[in-house]
Amino acid sequence: MGNLSVRDAQTCVLEHVLIRDTEVVKLEASLGRVLAEEIRANRDQPPYDVSAMDGFALRSTDLAMTPVALTIIEDIKAGDMPGKTVQAGQCSRIMTGAPVPAGADAVIRVEDTRMLSDENVEIRIGVDAGNDIRLLGENMRNGQVVLSNGTEITPGVIGVLATVKCAQMKVYRRPRVAILSTGNELEGLDEPVDPDKIPNSNSYALMAQAQALGIEPVLLGIARDDPEELAQFVRRGLLFDVLLISGGSSVGLHDHVRPTLEALGVDMHFWRVEMRPGHPLAFGTTASTMVFGLPGNPVSSMVCFEQFVLPALRRMMGHSHLFRRTIKARLTHPVKIRPGRTEFIRVVLERNESSRLPGSYVASSTGTQSSGALLSMALADGLLVVPSTSSGLAAGESAVIQLLDGAVFQDEPGIEGGT
Amino acid sequence: MGNLSVRDAQTCVLEHVLIRDTEVVKLEASLGRVLAEEIRANRDQPPYDVSAMDGFALRSTDLAMTPVALTIIEDIKAGDMPGKTVQAGQCSRIMTGAPVPAGADAVIRVEDTRMLSDENVEIRIGVDAGNDIRLLGENMRNGQVVLSNGTEITPGVIGVLATVKCAQMKVYRRPRVAILSTGNELEGLDEPVDPDKIPNSNSYALMAQAQALGIEPVLLGIARDDPEELAQFVRRGLLFDVLLISGGSSVGLHDHVRPTLEALGVDMHFWRVEMRPGHPLAFGTTASTMVFGLPGNPVSSMVCFEQFVLPALRRMMGHSHLFRRTIKARLTHPVKIRPGRTEFIRVVLERNESSRLPGSYVASSTGTQSSGALLSMALADGLLVVPSTSSGLAAGESAVIQLLDGAVFQDEPGIEGGT
Repeated sequence: MGNLSVRDAQTCVLEHVLIRDTEVVKLEASLGRVLAEEIRANRDQPPYDVSAMDGFALRSTDLAMTPVALTIIEDIKAGDMPGKTVQAGQCSRIMTGAPVPAGADAVIRVEDTRMLSDENVEIRIGVDAGNDIRLLGENMRNGQVVLSNGTEITPGVIGVLATVKCAQMKVYRRPRVAILSTGNELEGLDEPVDPDKIPNSNSYALMAQAQALGIEPVLLGIARDDPEELAQFVRRGLLFDVLLISGGSSVGLHDHVRPTLEALGVDMHFWRVEMRPGHPLAFGTTASTMVFGLPGNPVSSMVCFEQFVLPALRRMMGHSHLFRRTIKARLTHPVKIRPGRTEFIRVVLERNESSRLPGSYVASSTGTQSSGALLSMALADGLLVVPSTSSGLAAGESAVIQLLDGAVFQDEPGIEGGT
Repeated sequence: MGNLSVRDAQTCVLEHVLIRDTEVVKLEASLGRVLAEEIRANRDQPPYDVSAMDGFALRSTDLAMTPVALTIIEDIKAGDMPGKTVQAGQCSRIMTGAPVPAGADAVIRVEDTRMLSDENVEIRIGVDAGNDIRLLGENMRNGQVVLSNGTEITPGVIGVLATVKCAQMKVYRRPRVAILSTGNELEGLDEPVDPDKIPNSNSYALMAQAQALGIEPVLLGIARDDPEELAQFVRRGLLFDVLLISGGSSVGLHDHVRPTLEALGVDMHFWRVEMRPGHPLAFGTTASTMVFGLPGNPVSSMVCFEQFVLPALRRMMGHSHLFRRTIKARLTHPVKIRPGRTEFIRVVLERNESSRLPGSYVASSTGTQSSGALLSMALADGLLVVPSTSSGLAAGESAVIQLLDGAVFQDEPGIEGGT
């Protein structure tokens, strides 16, 4: 139980994730959840050969010489069934999604035609058999598994669920998360301002980090530096799936947290991780609860949540994609660090429009990297990860960036040219 | 009002975004919203010079020769005020966040010391004045603007808001969005399966795309191909800030949507965009409502939402980052297209671990790009954007990818090495 590397600590945490049970939710409330069952198609889709375009269904052999005039024998809308068979020299006007009539083997889109009269249309180009026809069952076959257990429910997945008429589905339950802050120096959000105290920001930042994952945590409040009071709070926290305790887990003299946790039966797995910020990070478990002792410094607390709590919560919810998206970016300035710990540096990203290389971002530090400088966390697009073996990076060097919540969107479309 | 490029159509849509009014929300309900006021610090932070570490506050001049033994005169916890002045040869034990006592000008962390007795500590290394001290007001000065109007409320911002004791704040109101599907061929989610009909997936996929932006849209249902019924639905839709109509906006014969919209006073700005999928995309406005006529094909509808509706909704909510994050990736295979339209190709991303270049992803098509193949949208991590001037891309070529909702997280930490 020495000082662990970030990766080893992540591995330890993820090994202790307990499988959550499942619940049934309605389609309207399923976004972001993870399927706990496989979903099968309940129909062929399309149910018959259908037109992929608004145009005319015809016999491709009639187009050997173009332009050619054809006689329109029927109008087929989406939702209609065709009544007539297309013979040589004939065609049926057809809408996107409408069934292709018997006799026809291709569709030609309306843009490649010209009306000659109400009943005659000129076809201007030839096409092969099958043109602009979507075949029966092309998208899904009745009974086929279309979504597997463990699929994250994105908007596209919701579209598929609606396609197979799945109005409710089994998903993994979200963990219940409790958040506790500790320390005599903390001032609650609802308490009057006392300049000698430190506002309790950690509870709220952690709350928001959990909310961003779709979890509504319970804030237990602030436990003062009193063993009895702390024990009372921790006992309540151990009724949850996850207990986040911020502050109080340092090596300091006045730390009641460790003995309290151990006295209450929490099996502690580690107390230190070789990272900066966030060195004093503790992790323990009971039979039903994961307990994270997060540093008291606001930035450290948030960075530790990102690295350890976030992947654990996502695994509990059934996700296989547990980690923040990373990209690479070139540094606009050198970064110097003491080797020995993985370093997480708050950075802002800018698109590198001049580059023709596949990595199009440059990254710059938000400024002070003091772990109290929460404002820099608010400004950051990402966390630049410097490996523990590195003593720094040069300007122009390429580095790994974890994208934070605010970086999912950008200010420019990023589409090249004027199109 | 000819066929617009994607960029010109985006510009047209964004020019018509109406400024939304504001509302007050509680901190607990503010995640993802945008500040409609500037926020000022209500205190100096830190309120005095504080220790950045657990360790000992001392006079840096005492460390000219190390190791050196100092006498501990006091214990200072976070939340305590120091009672004694540190003299030459003395130090005070100090906790992270606790005020630095008079006389001391540096803090040395506990790891660089060794206890000699209860009252004496050996300091093993020298440090400069100011070491591990966070100065009064270093993070924020009383009265200073810490968050500007227009700031997106991320977890870091919530931490800052809690720090300045901002329990509620003014944010931009979310738009009210109505979703309408049209077409005789559509079968509602609650209707029995009819193999000749097409399940209404678009309403739900669009619902989820809006939900992913924090909006809870209202589903108006399915309007059949009857001018009176459609007009009734559209009149209800025009009571909302945004009306999304899917299907029925093609050039087809049976299209009632355009005359109905125009008869109800919708000023139409365009009917076509040079893109694939999604060519038949319509946009119009009234004094109070933006109306999008989205294609009936499920994938086209979703892709058009991504390019046009998403940035409009985000601007209405006060965001300045309106567009999906884009990254570049190398293609694993060639892509051939007809030039003339901007093409959006559904792709999956994989990390290119072998690359030492700053762009570390490779992209591959999800397979069929038929606009009916909604399953491929469910599988996709992103949309590869091929400019309208291009006739294709070669294998290995670098391309722009818009990251979709499911791509915010990844399956590996992406942190180099074992650290």
